[in-house]
Amino acid sequence: MGDGLTVAVLGATGAVGREFLDLFEKRSFPVKELRLLASERSAGTRIPFDGREVEVQAVSAESFAGVDVAFFSAGATRSKEWAQVAVDHGAVVIDNSSAFRMDPSVPLVVPEVNFGAVKPEDKLIANPNCCAIILLMAVAPLRELGRIERLIVSTYQSASGGGAAMMQDLLDQTTDYLAGREVKPNVTPHPYAFNLFSHNTAINSEGANDEEAKVVAESRKILDDPSLKVNVTCVRVPVLRAHCESVTVEFDRAAPSEEAVRNTLAKAAGVKVVDDRAGNHFPMPSESSGQDDVLVGRIRRDPSNPNALCLFVSGDQLLKGAALNAVQIAERLFARSPVRV
Amino acid sequence: MGDGLTVAVLGATGAVGREFLDLFEKRSFPVKELRLLASERSAGTRIPFDGREVEVQAVSAESFAGVDVAFFSAGATRSKEWAQVAVDHGAVVIDNSSAFRMDPSVPLVVPEVNFGAVKPEDKLIANPNCCAIILLMAVAPLRELGRIERLIVSTYQSASGGGAAMMQDLLDQTTDYLAGREVKPNVTPHPYAFNLFSHNTAINSEGANDEEAKVVAESRKILDDPSLKVNVTCVRVPVLRAHCESVTVEFDRAAPSEEAVRNTLAKAAGVKVVDDRAGNHFPMPSESSGQDDVLVGRIRRDPSNPNALCLFVSGDQLLKGAALNAVQIAERLFARSPVRV
Repeated sequence: MGDGLTVAVLGATGAVGREFLDLFEKRSFPVKELRLLASERSAGTRIPFDGREVEVQAVSAESFAGVDVAFFSAGATRSKEWAQVAVDHGAVVIDNSSAFRMDPSVPLVVPEVNFGAVKPEDKLIANPNCCAIILLMAVAPLRELGRIERLIVSTYQSASGGGAAMMQDLLDQTTDYLAGREVKPNVTPHPYAFNLFSHNTAINSEGANDEEAKVVAESRKILDDPSLKVNVTCVRVPVLRAHCESVTVEFDRAAPSEEAVRNTLAKAAGVKVVDDRAGNHFPMPSESSGQDDVLVGRIRRDPSNPNALCLFVSGDQLLKGAALNAVQIAERLFARSPVRV
Repeated sequence: MGDGLTVAVLGATGAVGREFLDLFEKRSFPVKELRLLASERSAGTRIPFDGREVEVQAVSAESFAGVDVAFFSAGATRSKEWAQVAVDHGAVVIDNSSAFRMDPSVPLVVPEVNFGAVKPEDKLIANPNCCAIILLMAVAPLRELGRIERLIVSTYQSASGGGAAMMQDLLDQTTDYLAGREVKPNVTPHPYAFNLFSHNTAINSEGANDEEAKVVAESRKILDDPSLKVNVTCVRVPVLRAHCESVTVEFDRAAPSEEAVRNTLAKAAGVKVVDDRAGNHFPMPSESSGQDDVLVGRIRRDPSNPNALCLFVSGDQLLKGAALNAVQIAERLFARSPVRV
């Protein structure tokens, strides 16, 4: 990769933005120059990186001059505003928002699952929804055991999916609750301390919320299977930064044995099997938080359908569900085409 | 009911025990004499009831002399020890433990669903598992719309299912977490503050934990349908006292319309439909806690199966999931057979 890359992060002050910086250091991502970009409001903030401090700049067209790769995590509106600008300046954009995910000309990528969807000429790559990534990390490897016809998923989603502000709101509301003060949500639509609620996104005419619609559509696109049937219920639980999912996988044939599933998942990249029945030790947010791997356990036959099996999955929403997946896309891109540098 | 009943509560100092006393007052349950029973350890505790204080006695055979109805909520071991003793003394026992639930000679009752299972001569009646009650309150009324073939359930279970000690442990661990102190679980097998974990009961050879096995077996018994297929995943979330369940119901025919489901549930006793899509307002623990009704919402067709529909349910584990259901059984019993008094 020559002497390294000029890297931009749009949304540098957000929860995912901070994870990018941490990952660049931990993974020795070849950063020659780092440009931290955000709204006017956040400009001037200084963020530690690699033993120094980098000042956040207000994003402008000039921000992208000479940039090799830009990680976008500032919401769909800003992505729509700046992605083409960055590409026009020669950058490869890896976009964590929903803006381009379902655009047929934009690859939607979980590297372990479908990196082959990226064509050499692609300059804009979409990073999937966090729940879709975590789900597919566990489910995609099972395709070698049979065709997957239907997924039934209930999520246990953490505050981090709502950003740093929602994480702080959970802490603040819980502090107030424990002090006997009135709990006044600042960010969440309902009380969050010791409470849970249906995912706070708009509901469509079929009764699905926007998060659920994303999981369905993105899972089909990533697995390249428009006929995949998906039933998903998205729920926000009072956990800080890792998502869990209770998953039933229905195959086109008798479900594989638990042993076959365990063996398949044990060799899957980015997956760790945590399935200790004797010790009652299964995937939990407390153990997946801060971890790169998606944890999978509660592997068992579905007693209600001979073609189905059950799993319980936990993955860090900010890492594999967002920043890590994006950085892994960049790593593979630049490993494949070092000429870009 | 004449001048009232002599009532015993075994397990009076527990979380469910306290709810019994509250319900007796709120529902004007005809208590002539109240005997609060517990282990030697708790004897002497004074508990407020109806404007006075009642002293807890150590349970003995004599405790049940002259008792009309005894509510047991002190675990399966104590139920096995004392249920027959109480019945031999002429009491009707309503047992909240798992001790007798699957005994074919003992009715297992959710009054709104299967009170007809109680025969006039029955002296011992089992109160079902909390998740089974809350699930069936939402699901049983739908049988008028088609035969139910399969239920797929993921639970979001609160601390109260583990008793007062687990509720306190959740508060203590969370307090420590927020103060930056090390979180040391006292009751829970894993950290509980801002965390969740698979239900902490033993796992059988099929991979189901004991809670899941109860939901399957008890649902079949209560619905009197041994062929009912049930897939259930039980998870403990950091919520204090109400359980939630994400439910998919598969029928033997095309699923009923959302409108038919809403109308059916709206007229079901003990059920309240909370299903406001525009306001993003659905069942939550914060709104079901302390409420008699089981809340049902997220009513929608399952996009992955034309015969299925989805629901999200929330009910107070200590009330309809335990004490309230038991008191309702007693109310119906004594309304049906006032000669017992």
